Amino acid sequence: MTEIPLQKSLFGRNQAEADSNRQRFAQAGLAVVNLLSSPGAGKTSLLEQTAACLKGKMRIFVVEGDLETERDADRIRAAGLPARQIQTHGACHLDAQSIDAALAGVDLNSYDLLLIENIGNLICPTGFDLGEDVRVVVASTTEGDDKPHKYPEAYHGADVCVLNKIDLLPYVPFHVEAFLAAARRANPNLLFLQTSCTTGQGIDAWCEFLCKLKKPST
Amino acid sequence: MTEIPLQKSLFGRNQAEADSNRQRFAQAGLAVVNLLSSPGAGKTSLLEQTAACLKGKMRIFVVEGDLETERDADRIRAAGLPARQIQTHGACHLDAQSIDAALAGVDLNSYDLLLIENIGNLICPTGFDLGEDVRVVVASTTEGDDKPHKYPEAYHGADVCVLNKIDLLPYVPFHVEAFLAAARRANPNLLFLQTSCTTGQGIDAWCEFLCKLKKPST
Repeated sequence: MTEIPLQKSLFGRNQAEADSNRQRFAQAGLAVVNLLSSPGAGKTSLLEQTAACLKGKMRIFVVEGDLETERDADRIRAAGLPARQIQTHGACHLDAQSIDAALAGVDLNSYDLLLIENIGNLICPTGFDLGEDVRVVVASTTEGDDKPHKYPEAYHGADVCVLNKIDLLPYVPFHVEAFLAAARRANPNLLFLQTSCTTGQGIDAWCEFLCKLKKPST
Repeated sequence: MTEIPLQKSLFGRNQAEADSNRQRFAQAGLAVVNLLSSPGAGKTSLLEQTAACLKGKMRIFVVEGDLETERDADRIRAAGLPARQIQTHGACHLDAQSIDAALAGVDLNSYDLLLIENIGNLICPTGFDLGEDVRVVVASTTEGDDKPHKYPEAYHGADVCVLNKIDLLPYVPFHVEAFLAAARRANPNLLFLQTSCTTGQGIDAWCEFLCKLKKPST
């Protein structure tokens, strides 16, 4: 029975650190987005497309989470945005403290938007507030339209759902309406966007959404 | 610093229960396979195809793991195999004790093969031995060919890698050779199989592999 108090204390400590992050981000006028998905749903590709679309229009900083490798941050830097990589070495989620540490020395006032790519995992990251304004769950048409039924917390805790890889719809047994109904059942307030990082479809609407997050300068 | 001894004790307790499962399975002459993958890689579809191919040839029992819903066990039963569903209600992996509990009242001597579908998660299930003989990581061509670099433990701890959804190879930026090289780097001893649950390609070889696991009757 020792796990429950420890879990409570872990979540409690994370929440305090997330609140502290949120306050710091607000003071800097920084909008913050936390992207969750299963492995390979296309979070990094979406951020590459975002870089291409918004470079020069918004001042964006990216924090990449991964178990191992610097690959994702390398891809984002190659796409023209500054990025830092968190390597968790096996840990299954980012937490608020890891975000604070990753941003050490970064002048937050110099940016409009912080995009955080969480670990590829639809379960564990859902329990850890990072201090974000908006949580986005990225789903992919190749995962099956039943995923909101099976991973409800990922949808319940999100503000936005990006359905990615819509260019593959002709080749996979995925019914968009069934997916939307399942996601709405988990969270009636979800905002839906549909994208393809291969064809570029829907990237404009996604970037328009991000632009609206920009906070008025103080 | 309290987490480390707790984690050690959790893993230690699981290992003792896994050893006990393994002994019980061996006594019953039961071969046991633990299937891991990210959400939507096609584990349940692979088991449906396995049911169609091996029904009447091997006596198979299936344990399905999921956060919520009985959907996967329903699909397996519809495919003609007996199945029990474990609902973890948010927990990110199966453990040895949950397998023991799921098999309560099942006469293990009546079966040749137990197939366990783990929670869709490439991280947390890797640390929990269930008492299986063979661990299989199911990858999908839509996830990207870099996943073995990014989730090395899923590949390092597996005996077999099934690359699924090969029918989608013409439509996705996935290089099989790059994937195989990355997976071999994580685990030089991996056995590779390639399947499509849509076209049926490779299902025969997968089922042939399963048939070879059958233990001589005592």
